[in-house]
Amino acid sequence: MNPAVKTAAKTPVGESKAVAGRAPATRKGRLSAVTEEQRSEIRELFDNRRKGYSLDAPFYTDPTLFTADMEGIFGQHWLFAASVAEIPEPGDYVTVDYGPYSLIVLRTEEGVNVLHNVCRHRGARVLTEAAGTTGNLVCGYHSWTYSPEGALVHASAPGEATFDKGCFGLKRAHSRVVAGLVFVCLAAEPPEDFDEVSRIFEPYLAPHELSSAKVAFQQELVEEGNWKLVMENNRECYHCDGHPELACSLFPTWGLTEGIIPPHLEDVWDRNVQADQALKDRCVRYGLPYEVLEELDTRIAGYRISREPLDGAGESFSASGRRLSKKLLGDLRDFRLGRCSMHLQPNSWFHFMSDHVITFSAFPINEHQTLVRTTWLVADDAVEGVDYDLETLTYTWKQTNLQDKNFVELCQRGAASPAYEPGPYMKSEYQVEAFINWYVQRMQEHLA
Amino acid sequence: MNPAVKTAAKTPVGESKAVAGRAPATRKGRLSAVTEEQRSEIRELFDNRRKGYSLDAPFYTDPTLFTADMEGIFGQHWLFAASVAEIPEPGDYVTVDYGPYSLIVLRTEEGVNVLHNVCRHRGARVLTEAAGTTGNLVCGYHSWTYSPEGALVHASAPGEATFDKGCFGLKRAHSRVVAGLVFVCLAAEPPEDFDEVSRIFEPYLAPHELSSAKVAFQQELVEEGNWKLVMENNRECYHCDGHPELACSLFPTWGLTEGIIPPHLEDVWDRNVQADQALKDRCVRYGLPYEVLEELDTRIAGYRISREPLDGAGESFSASGRRLSKKLLGDLRDFRLGRCSMHLQPNSWFHFMSDHVITFSAFPINEHQTLVRTTWLVADDAVEGVDYDLETLTYTWKQTNLQDKNFVELCQRGAASPAYEPGPYMKSEYQVEAFINWYVQRMQEHLA
Amino acid sequence: MNPAVKTAAKTPVGESKAVAGRAPATRKGRLSAVTEEQRSEIRELFDNRRKGYSLDAPFYTDPTLFTADMEGIFGQHWLFAASVAEIPEPGDYVTVDYGPYSLIVLRTEEGVNVLHNVCRHRGARVLTEAAGTTGNLVCGYHSWTYSPEGALVHASAPGEATFDKGCFGLKRAHSRVVAGLVFVCLAAEPPEDFDEVSRIFEPYLAPHELSSAKVAFQQELVEEGNWKLVMENNRECYHCDGHPELACSLFPTWGLTEGIIPPHLEDVWDRNVQADQALKDRCVRYGLPYEVLEELDTRIAGYRISREPLDGAGESFSASGRRLSKKLLGDLRDFRLGRCSMHLQPNSWFHFMSDHVITFSAFPINEHQTLVRTTWLVADDAVEGVDYDLETLTYTWKQTNLQDKNFVELCQRGAASPAYEPGPYMKSEYQVEAFINWYVQRMQEHLA
Repeated sequence: MNPAVKTAAKTPVGESKAVAGRAPATRKGRLSAVTEEQRSEIRELFDNRRKGYSLDAPFYTDPTLFTADMEGIFGQHWLFAASVAEIPEPGDYVTVDYGPYSLIVLRTEEGVNVLHNVCRHRGARVLTEAAGTTGNLVCGYHSWTYSPEGALVHASAPGEATFDKGCFGLKRAHSRVVAGLVFVCLAAEPPEDFDEVSRIFEPYLAPHELSSAKVAFQQELVEEGNWKLVMENNRECYHCDGHPELACSLFPTWGLTEGIIPPHLEDVWDRNVQADQALKDRCVRYGLPYEVLEELDTRIAGYRISREPLDGAGESFSASGRRLSKKLLGDLRDFRLGRCSMHLQPNSWFHFMSDHVITFSAFPINEHQTLVRTTWLVADDAVEGVDYDLETLTYTWKQTNLQDKNFVELCQRGAASPAYEPGPYMKSEYQVEAFINWYVQRMQEHLA
Repeated sequence: MNPAVKTAAKTPVGESKAVAGRAPATRKGRLSAVTEEQRSEIRELFDNRRKGYSLDAPFYTDPTLFTADMEGIFGQHWLFAASVAEIPEPGDYVTVDYGPYSLIVLRTEEGVNVLHNVCRHRGARVLTEAAGTTGNLVCGYHSWTYSPEGALVHASAPGEATFDKGCFGLKRAHSRVVAGLVFVCLAAEPPEDFDEVSRIFEPYLAPHELSSAKVAFQQELVEEGNWKLVMENNRECYHCDGHPELACSLFPTWGLTEGIIPPHLEDVWDRNVQADQALKDRCVRYGLPYEVLEELDTRIAGYRISREPLDGAGESFSASGRRLSKKLLGDLRDFRLGRCSMHLQPNSWFHFMSDHVITFSAFPINEHQTLVRTTWLVADDAVEGVDYDLETLTYTWKQTNLQDKNFVELCQRGAASPAYEPGPYMKSEYQVEAFINWYVQRMQEHLA
Repeated sequence: MNPAVKTAAKTPVGESKAVAGRAPATRKGRLSAVTEEQRSEIRELFDNRRKGYSLDAPFYTDPTLFTADMEGIFGQHWLFAASVAEIPEPGDYVTVDYGPYSLIVLRTEEGVNVLHNVCRHRGARVLTEAAGTTGNLVCGYHSWTYSPEGALVHASAPGEATFDKGCFGLKRAHSRVVAGLVFVCLAAEPPEDFDEVSRIFEPYLAPHELSSAKVAFQQELVEEGNWKLVMENNRECYHCDGHPELACSLFPTWGLTEGIIPPHLEDVWDRNVQADQALKDRCVRYGLPYEVLEELDTRIAGYRISREPLDGAGESFSASGRRLSKKLLGDLRDFRLGRCSMHLQPNSWFHFMSDHVITFSAFPINEHQTLVRTTWLVADDAVEGVDYDLETLTYTWKQTNLQDKNFVELCQRGAASPAYEPGPYMKSEYQVEAFINWYVQRMQEHLA
């Protein structure tokens, strides 16, 4: 949907001063989106949840629970929307949908502004393209015209003496730009701990300098599965035998710890340990943080970040581990930086390499469908066909995404059976469980 | 779906003596279509409605409210179904669906008969084509055979001694033919004021003599929008900048009144005033009524009718304003009769020109889809390719319909967002508001 | 979906010792699948049912009632799944879906085993093909591996010291093989009278020896109608004028009895009586049962079985009544054995001829869609193109199925209208009424 390639951002992007409008109404397009009776039934489902086990079927299949998720998770938390490389110039925008919400993420002279994509006149969707460039925002129905800040600047209305344009600006959502990643929050009062989490992950990501990167490719996959299955799948590598292309880059030691290494993996384990040490040394030399930080279920903005070695040449997600783009990002001085990987709840994950960055975001559509948008970013002076080959650059994760889509869909179909019952998470799936713990805590608090 | 061209009606069509069967059951194909709890929630939504503003989201998106609309609006009021030119000969029929209702509109020797398209044996749909010609109506399942009046005349049932065919005629709906337009009413006791409204609009339309017109073309568009958005869109020209083809025919003075004419439109305003006067003179000469009558929210059968000049040559909806068919309708003696336009709530609008007539009807499908059927009628002796070119005849409104479909769909998508809130109608949208007022009144009365 | 032709079964198949797991949870993938309020509304609908008439609309169109049907009918009764000819060798399987349930029907060394197709780890669907061959069953997500009996034999889980594989076998459903027909039951305690019914119908079917038959063709039709409409349609021939191909094989005397034969059918009646007597004589000679047995609404496993003559040559469902395959089934010694037809509630019917067998099963998808799977079986030594022509073999019932699909869909569409009201069953439809009586009784007992 988005143009695949764009020239790089020139405008400096700071943290925008988010000016929230009224909190979005909780009423969805239905009579009581969630009735009191349903709310208490949902609360009970949460209370009865068995720790260490996957969720009950309704969490994956029930439309009312989806509505509750949209209120309690997507309506309350900071959400990754796009990177600044997708909107490099003032006037550039992308539109993103989180369940029923439709938002415009707009680059302005001052930074980034996020507006609800709903005209204040009669509710028409204002911008209908997935991405584009605009000056003022003009509704296609009656030409109501809004400034990039959302102010209603023109509404032709002959004889409308008493009409106060000041009351009908586009509603705004909160937004933040951290290390070139644009986050939005739909809540009236965004949770505060994101400030602290931002300060934690920014030093990891900032050296890759997304503001001088460009989009090489963007893929959108609609997965026939609940958004939580998409996130659960992403939180473990227990299934990584199902990713032969990805497996070339990952040490096949996932889930192992000292003491339980099977004999046939001892060599690999040693290679991994050595690569890890070499990477740390390199990070120290360049002043890059590499420590594993993990607070998946112990704070509101649950996250995990780490820098880890890649197998083979250790440079990028290729079969040999060699670089996929010849240009280093930002001011990086070495290709052998492995992957700096971040998980950010509720809906995103990232891999930052020296030569390219991949961002992933999950946009829930309904209880059984989720759009996964994957964006490959390279240095803005990298030339397609010269510095990188687009097919090769995107090969590993295109394959991996398709495999993951299949896994998610197997679970969605299985959960539909009355014979489904929650099963146990294995030790190597502790991050899945942590994600579920986080989800349950956040929702219980919201429903309280 | 319908055959595009038919030969003209020969049979005189009077007002049929509608013989209503039992009132259709209110139970739809669901457990309590609308529960008491939902009914009270709906009443509350109506009571909390902010005057002068568009409706709350559930009115456009909630399936239960759609069911309530079908009961309270489409189940109670007179509805335009088709013109007699679509069923010119005895035995000709069209089938029409209003939400869950399926009806057969059948031309008989006596007039028009409207039957529920549901076999009394095991509920099979009796006629499955959109239009056709039939003698008796034979159900395709077990060959139960009904007379054009709906009486069960044959049901092969060997040994079925006690079976009383008299109890199993097709259910009938009320019907009326006014100036060649067929109206149906699903209520047991149709509202009475339609008689008076019929007497009001008949003299405007009758001179165009639909009984000697023929269908030149029929278009069906499924719009992804609630039926009320379709009607709202049709009640204002504030968006007419979005109709470049239509704008050729309309004076660009919509919404203006003496005293608020912007300088650059003063010439156009004068031209409009002159054309209006000339049209009135012509109407006086030919004995045609031209007064604007408008009772959109002050009676049960809300309507608006007027005769207004067209720009340019003033004859028809062409770029130049010149005629689109060379044959005058009925006994009309002049091509320069502008457009006689009628709005009729809840679901239809019409343009009667000297050379052709266009009828529009909105058939709700569900809360987010509406079928709009547009029919172009010309004099029955007009020959395609000689007296009119089909593409040219239909061009303006085909384009306009597609543009309107887009507008309706923008609003439907926008209303899905929790950030949507009702916005203010402008003065030039007073007819939209009148339609909404009517809708709210009718529903409040129904729900009381 | 299934491979059309397979080699014949070699393994003797006895009655499997069904080892039921825990009864499947009644919670579907929704908050309270059926709330107490809905349950009492459903009970009322059953109580208010008018005997001798078709059901109220919600029985055909309401999703909650569909859920209730899945619980009360498909979750409780013995269901036909497949014949052994579809899974001739150990390791062969088919997957079947009854509403939300997904099952694996697997041929093992010992017989047939039926497993819920839901991994006990995180709920993934285990087998995704409609049919195939497998050793152990390996989940495609994390490679959890189950024995053909359902035991979890492998789950790679490094360091998972305390994990008890014994607790996580695939859930099993009960299964029975009778005369080569595989039946499953999802209830914890299957109804017992199926034993007796099995003993009744086995002698009729066993001589056709499905264990030495092969699948010649399998057809899957999705009918846009509730499963009960599919079954009702199959329970009467009042509509058989709509089956011109099938009518060649059936004596056109359906619904007639001595004393009400119309003059023009007297000859046919006599021919039927003679053919019937000849068939009985032949059955006596070969020791084949032929008596009509009918207990459609007088027991839990409602059935009807009979052997009846076919018109013309009386051998098979061809236009001339001549054989469609040159090889006799099993040890049969005569082609002129008419059709041995069985109806088995809730979801199957069968025709056993001397040269081929046709099995039909209805798999509900949702309240308005049903998959009908039809399988043509011939002797395993019959060679396509030599002993039978596939097009000719399948012609009559392919046509008939399409016609039936249309009939079912007419009723589904009709029932959607609020004007639909239950209509009277004719005498020749007494089996439809018996099916409905059975359904109502079974559901009332379940809901009590």
